[in-house]
Amino acid sequence: MDQNINKRIGILGGGQLGKMLCQAGSKLGLSIAIMERDKTFPAYPICSNWTDGDITKYEDVIAFGKDKDVITIEIENVNLSALEALEEMGKEVYPPTDALKIIKDKGLQKTFYEGLNFPTSDFTLFKSKDEIIKAIENKKLSIPFVQKSRTEGYDGKGVHVVRSEDDLKGLLDTQSVVEDLVDIKTELSVIVARRPNGEMSYFPPVEMEFHPTANLVEFLFSPSMLEHYIQEKAINLAMLVAQKLEIVGLLAVEMFVTKNDEILVNEVAPRPHNSGHHTIEACDISQYEMHLRAILDLPLINATLIRPAVMVNLLGEEGHSGTTLYSGLTEALQTAGVYPHLYGKKETKPYRKMGHVTIVNADIDKAKNIGHHIKNTLKVIAQT
Amino acid sequence: MDQNINKRIGILGGGQLGKMLCQAGSKLGLSIAIMERDKTFPAYPICSNWTDGDITKYEDVIAFGKDKDVITIEIENVNLSALEALEEMGKEVYPPTDALKIIKDKGLQKTFYEGLNFPTSDFTLFKSKDEIIKAIENKKLSIPFVQKSRTEGYDGKGVHVVRSEDDLKGLLDTQSVVEDLVDIKTELSVIVARRPNGEMSYFPPVEMEFHPTANLVEFLFSPSMLEHYIQEKAINLAMLVAQKLEIVGLLAVEMFVTKNDEILVNEVAPRPHNSGHHTIEACDISQYEMHLRAILDLPLINATLIRPAVMVNLLGEEGHSGTTLYSGLTEALQTAGVYPHLYGKKETKPYRKMGHVTIVNADIDKAKNIGHHIKNTLKVIAQT
Repeated sequence: MDQNINKRIGILGGGQLGKMLCQAGSKLGLSIAIMERDKTFPAYPICSNWTDGDITKYEDVIAFGKDKDVITIEIENVNLSALEALEEMGKEVYPPTDALKIIKDKGLQKTFYEGLNFPTSDFTLFKSKDEIIKAIENKKLSIPFVQKSRTEGYDGKGVHVVRSEDDLKGLLDTQSVVEDLVDIKTELSVIVARRPNGEMSYFPPVEMEFHPTANLVEFLFSPSMLEHYIQEKAINLAMLVAQKLEIVGLLAVEMFVTKNDEILVNEVAPRPHNSGHHTIEACDISQYEMHLRAILDLPLINATLIRPAVMVNLLGEEGHSGTTLYSGLTEALQTAGVYPHLYGKKETKPYRKMGHVTIVNADIDKAKNIGHHIKNTLKVIAQT
Repeated sequence: MDQNINKRIGILGGGQLGKMLCQAGSKLGLSIAIMERDKTFPAYPICSNWTDGDITKYEDVIAFGKDKDVITIEIENVNLSALEALEEMGKEVYPPTDALKIIKDKGLQKTFYEGLNFPTSDFTLFKSKDEIIKAIENKKLSIPFVQKSRTEGYDGKGVHVVRSEDDLKGLLDTQSVVEDLVDIKTELSVIVARRPNGEMSYFPPVEMEFHPTANLVEFLFSPSMLEHYIQEKAINLAMLVAQKLEIVGLLAVEMFVTKNDEILVNEVAPRPHNSGHHTIEACDISQYEMHLRAILDLPLINATLIRPAVMVNLLGEEGHSGTTLYSGLTEALQTAGVYPHLYGKKETKPYRKMGHVTIVNADIDKAKNIGHHIKNTLKVIAQT
């Protein structure tokens, strides 16, 4: 008998990643409960079961986890001690807390890569802003560099780039990792999956397209245009990192590709990832189903890209705060191969992740052109 | 502004078709409420909103519909008078009640085809079992024939085939349509969609594969192997039927292809259909999203089959009644391109539709082989 699919799954967090996990789970008839603070979160309408609670509070996480079989996360900012206690009670906690502890702290993460000789940019750990200023005065550290808060960083928050002395004013006064600013050609992401028994699989690499003048990610696309051997190297590195972390579930490995084709691990996320949204329509298995299969100890398969894809995040429009409205959606739906995902957040604010659009086309350049058009025409605004 | 996607949708019925409508709606962040009698129905875990009620009761349907903008169905067995009243209140009811009235009654349906000169098998309407017996005695009717109950027929229920005098014992004693038994080569289904403004689109035809010896449908597959011109004819006929019925939403048109390549309309369903399950993974748009787009008056697109597909229904195993268990599921998940959909019905009984499996493969013959294997190995059984 196939009992694994009857396991009671608990997910800490109910954002868009939780929502898309529920969508994938629904096809297999899985029982998925979500803990979040109130009913306004994206996954609420489609999770089988909702528990009101704070994922950062010990008691809440314990109470939620104790009648589940498998506990997983959709965001790293959870109560680690509670997860450790649940693990000790014999619950299956994925990602395992040992891995999560390393990943949650960017200092530990870099030290972990360094200890295993994984290629990563040079770095130093600092306890405070003052320590960084002192290191610069003593010529132990030189501009430019990137400062990353060791914990609580998310979606670009907790990251400060110092290109000139002027930028020193903005230094974060917290425990941080200071990394060399790498001169990169492009960024790659490889999502891999691992079962409790060690079986692994991976998704084809995803590449970032940068705006030609502004240094901003325009969108993600797959397949990557990089030479095959570089992609292979990236996949192997991602698999090795997941293995050494003894991950169960997904691990999204973000990497820099330098101008001389060196690959450096940037950072990892032990859950579904923004760079895997397109897998819903473009691959023969989605990252969400893969994560669920991995944590349920069900067979994994190496994902195949069926159709080239571009993914554009739909961010709340600058200058718009309030009840969510969409403009340009009807037009977007007129083109075959355009898949808007609207997360159902009732309130928009500038740069909030409100949805994403996957564009699939046999011709990747056409997909990119449509992606540009969507970026310019599909807007998330506020009711006036 | 794109306000149509904010419309409050109400679906009468929460079976697997309702569930898959909710899955599709979830991606677009739609607000979907479902009315069903208790919480055990398949769509319950993923609909945004559930109303306890009986879809065949006038008061329940009115109460459910009056705070919705658009009301649709996932099964024809609903209270028609209530829907007519909601239509009069200015609610958008799709399929329109005029079309639903014709479709719900197989006698009216056949008369409708006849009146418009649509090709369909010859038929006679009867009021009772006795009338049929009398017609045979008077040589006005001859064996073999098929008797179909005018109303309440579903999933093979309400259909009785008479091949010999012996079969007359099993005649249904109800108002019925008696049709010629057509000597068919194969059966086709074409699903079309229509918006309130008359814009239409269609899905590629789906063909039925019959068991070589037993006269049973083994599975559905697409693309059809029939000559292109026959498929074109079928698509055009399906579009015309939907147009004449002034359908809004989906119309699944089931057709017989006779041994001399004549196409006869068999029957239609004004909603998502079993023959469109594969569109979730095999087409660039699913029948579920297409139905939602049509009833929300959003753009339709002609669906393209991306990958050949085979669909196998997962029926409750004979001799098994009780708490649902799956056998062979883990094995099924080992093959790429195999997509089990488990409806989440807690209780199984013989022949109950418990799920389906879509098999997608660049090689349709490989897909069929996998389909056969799945049919023999993936079983829905009861806990002992």
